[in-house]
Amino acid sequence: MESFVRESLLYDFYGELLTDHQKKIFQEVVFDDFSVSEVARDEGISRQGVHDMVRRSEKALEEYEARLHLVDRFLKIRAQIDQIRGLTDCSGGDAGENLKKIRTIAEEIRREL
Amino acid sequence: MESFVRESLLYDFYGELLTDHQKKIFQEVVFDDFSVSEVARDEGISRQGVHDMVRRSEKALEEYEARLHLVDRFLKIRAQIDQIRGLTDCSGGDAGENLKKIRTIAEEIRREL
Repeated sequence: MESFVRESLLYDFYGELLTDHQKKIFQEVVFDDFSVSEVARDEGISRQGVHDMVRRSEKALEEYEARLHLVDRFLKIRAQIDQIRGLTDCSGGDAGENLKKIRTIAEEIRREL
Repeated sequence: MESFVRESLLYDFYGELLTDHQKKIFQEVVFDDFSVSEVARDEGISRQGVHDMVRRSEKALEEYEARLHLVDRFLKIRAQIDQIRGLTDCSGGDAGENLKKIRTIAEEIRREL
């Protein structure tokens, strides 16, 4: 997965476990595309300080995922939901057959929830 | 929701963020149904110590949920998946119509993932 997408997902899931200061700097650098120099000036810390803070936040988010695997679980379900969506469009297909396939996938998801 | 079910869900989602010692005592008391006295004796701590540890673990799990809401998100998806499963069984119904309803639910889930 593209690294930015992954960072967004990790932040979406675990961002609230960072401190307010970590969140602010992470958002500015990673999502709002501020330069490290700008953030450093606004926060009154060194550029290295900003770098370290972002890196520590990334590491913390990855550590939460390594323990909880919730992003992985959600991504798997997302892929299964997309399969179901595909099966609801059966122009010319056999609707009854598609319902059976959907049932199988829905039961797979259910076992994971 | 029944409190034991909720505790199990919270532990399933966030248990890995507890310390090994917290996990061990929480499991013994909450899931394995050991008495507080037994656990206290095995761990060489007071009964009050065991109580406090379980209560602190419960509080920690609830605080993770208050920040991340992942149990709530999963429960919502679980209910939607159950709706989909119900709709795959359309003995006597209109399969095409059910596929449309499934599509709507799948798209709702997708927006939340």
